Amino acid sequence: MAIETRFTKAFGLRHPVALAPMAGVAGGELAGAVARAGGLGLLGGGYGDADWIHAQWPLAGGAEIGIGFITWKLTGGLLAEALERRPKAVMLSFGDLQPFAAQIRAAGVPLIAQVQELAGAKAAVEAGADVIVAQGSEAGGHGATRATMTLVPEVADYLAAKAPDRILLAAGGIADGRGLAAALMLGAEGVLIGSRFWAAREALVPEGFHKAALAATGDQTLRGSVPDAARMLHWPAPYTIRTLRSAFTDQWQSNPDALRDPAQEPLRQAWAEAQARGDAQIGTPVAGEAVGLIGGIAPAAEILDGITTEALSCLNAQRRG
Amino acid sequence: MAIETRFTKAFGLRHPVALAPMAGVAGGELAGAVARAGGLGLLGGGYGDADWIHAQWPLAGGAEIGIGFITWKLTGGLLAEALERRPKAVMLSFGDLQPFAAQIRAAGVPLIAQVQELAGAKAAVEAGADVIVAQGSEAGGHGATRATMTLVPEVADYLAAKAPDRILLAAGGIADGRGLAAALMLGAEGVLIGSRFWAAREALVPEGFHKAALAATGDQTLRGSVPDAARMLHWPAPYTIRTLRSAFTDQWQSNPDALRDPAQEPLRQAWAEAQARGDAQIGTPVAGEAVGLIGGIAPAAEILDGITTEALSCLNAQRRG
Ligand SMILES: Cc1cc2nc3c(=O)[nH]c(=O)nc-3n(C[C@H](O)[C@H](O)[C@H](O)COP(=O)(O)O)c2cc1C
Ligand SMILES: Cc1cc2nc3c(=O)[nH]c(=O)nc-3n(C[C@H](O)[C@H](O)[C@H](O)COP(=O)(O)O)c2cc1C
Repeated sequence: MAIETRFTKAFGLRHPVALAPMAGVAGGELAGAVARAGGLGLLGGGYGDADWIHAQWPLAGGAEIGIGFITWKLTGGLLAEALERRPKAVMLSFGDLQPFAAQIRAAGVPLIAQVQELAGAKAAVEAGADVIVAQGSEAGGHGATRATMTLVPEVADYLAAKAPDRILLAAGGIADGRGLAAALMLGAEGVLIGSRFWAAREALVPEGFHKAALAATGDQTLRGSVPDAARMLHWPAPYTIRTLRSAFTDQWQSNPDALRDPAQEPLRQAWAEAQARGDAQIGTPVAGEAVGLIGGIAPAAEILDGITTEALSCLNAQRRG
Repeated sequence: MAIETRFTKAFGLRHPVALAPMAGVAGGELAGAVARAGGLGLLGGGYGDADWIHAQWPLAGGAEIGIGFITWKLTGGLLAEALERRPKAVMLSFGDLQPFAAQIRAAGVPLIAQVQELAGAKAAVEAGADVIVAQGSEAGGHGATRATMTLVPEVADYLAAKAPDRILLAAGGIADGRGLAAALMLGAEGVLIGSRFWAAREALVPEGFHKAALAATGDQTLRGSVPDAARMLHWPAPYTIRTLRSAFTDQWQSNPDALRDPAQEPLRQAWAEAQARGDAQIGTPVAGEAVGLIGGIAPAAEILDGITTEALSCLNAQRRG
């Protein structure tokens, strides 16, 4: 038994699930594991570190994977390099697609666009995106304010009326079969999952961060700009980043830009080191409200199977009439 | 064909749907219409205006309705008065239940508690609530930050482990059958709906506000404290109010307390008058992200039937295996 949708058919998948291209976290091993298990594996191209991508791509072990980028950091040169690898798809999120859409289409590669508002979905359709990911604010990592529960059906209505050939995925807060089943009810044909795979064995996440996330409930995340300020990243509005909450995020949440002061260089340095070694007392694990639904670290293939199996049992339990 | 759950059975309903007790909006006519149509009708007791409740209660026309209050504004006296009316249920939201739970239990009336975090659900269970409503941030009106998509399954897991006799409803962003079906997948046994019923013919909402909401997409709401400041209400943290967005909310959003300045009395007065006459240019309609899913103003009974019929067709369309 499987869940077949226009998404699984278009990409030849066994699960209607894509791995979110989490910057620095979704490396070749994780993307390859998801792809081999029958999901859509997307490498986390993130801010566009060519060396990192070059090193990670082969770790997928020849599995057919795609790649995602943060749109406002992407360049035509980096995209060209990615397209030469014949990715299964390119996913773009957080910025204007228009400068890159033609280049991706010319390469014959499917374009996946993650959007945070109905307005963004309209822009993605106009730019020619094949797959639209409607991302709610509960998501881990960067995002905006709308919630999955309303954004998905509203985008579904828009696509049904204006662009019924496009495929819709839901993202944000989906970590198990209940979430996948709910997304299907809302009109999505699959889901894009970040946080749950962040807690996969193959994810590039230090053990200390995994431990902190497993101990947290969903009440213990927040959206803000503290980690961006700590890294001196200048994310454009309206994007903020959802992370675990800590004394550090609480301290700076109301005025994150104060962290950019030259006097705070030692603090930023300490934060970066904690980030690298996985010290959640000082550093800030990047994950979403779904942390409260994650029971343990597991191999990606097991996570995928669990999600589909549970979704099927939810769907069948609710059969009526 | 109907959707039967522990919620419909416990309250003798034909639809697993409760009307949110929207302050000033869910009057006797709307609560009565929902109750007669087979949902749970809850009068919007709100801030506790005894005269308003006295005038509205009979407008339910003898239908069995319940009543909701804003917990931090409730008093034992007001609650006693409400309990004398033999309500079908009392719903409390936004504050500590503990001072009121025993009084409600002693009257043999079911207690419904709306919560915004997992921590709130635990407190509600301990206080003896019979029904827990997990409310996401996409909701219209007051609320907090967590989203329906993750809060509902996380509370479901908690109840399954610790208090399986309690009934769970989902609230926030549910306006049609897709939302109801999704909520069932997430582990709820029904839904509490505000915004969609705010747009019912029987709702106490001026026509101009209904028109503004129908014209809006879900992108055009925001959470903040501007309308509370404009009314000189002192809501405790962490609650904010979701409304339609306007030039007025944009202007004051970053510093709503400035509206409380004595010099702003004329502006507050103009806002209150616009609120009363339904002028959305100056006033602020209170509704949630679900406005983007609302197609028109309709009688409550028709809305209810539409939701259940659509939910059934979603549930059956996704049948597998
Ligand atoms: C650690 C982490 C890093 C992320 N990095 C990116 C990224 O580089 N590019 C991107 O498009 N989305 C990124 N996201 C967001 C995901 O694409 C996705 O929207 C989100 O993870 C979905 O919500 P969930 O975390 O509840 O599954 C990231 C998410 C996480 C948790
Ligand atoms: C106009 C309006 C007034 C509200 N007033 C109250 C209230 O007085 N007490 C309360 O518990 N909830 C109130 N709510 C919140 C609802 O209980 C409910 O959580 C919310 O409407 C659900 O989300 P939805 O609007 O997307 O359906 C109100 C909601 C709206 C839209």
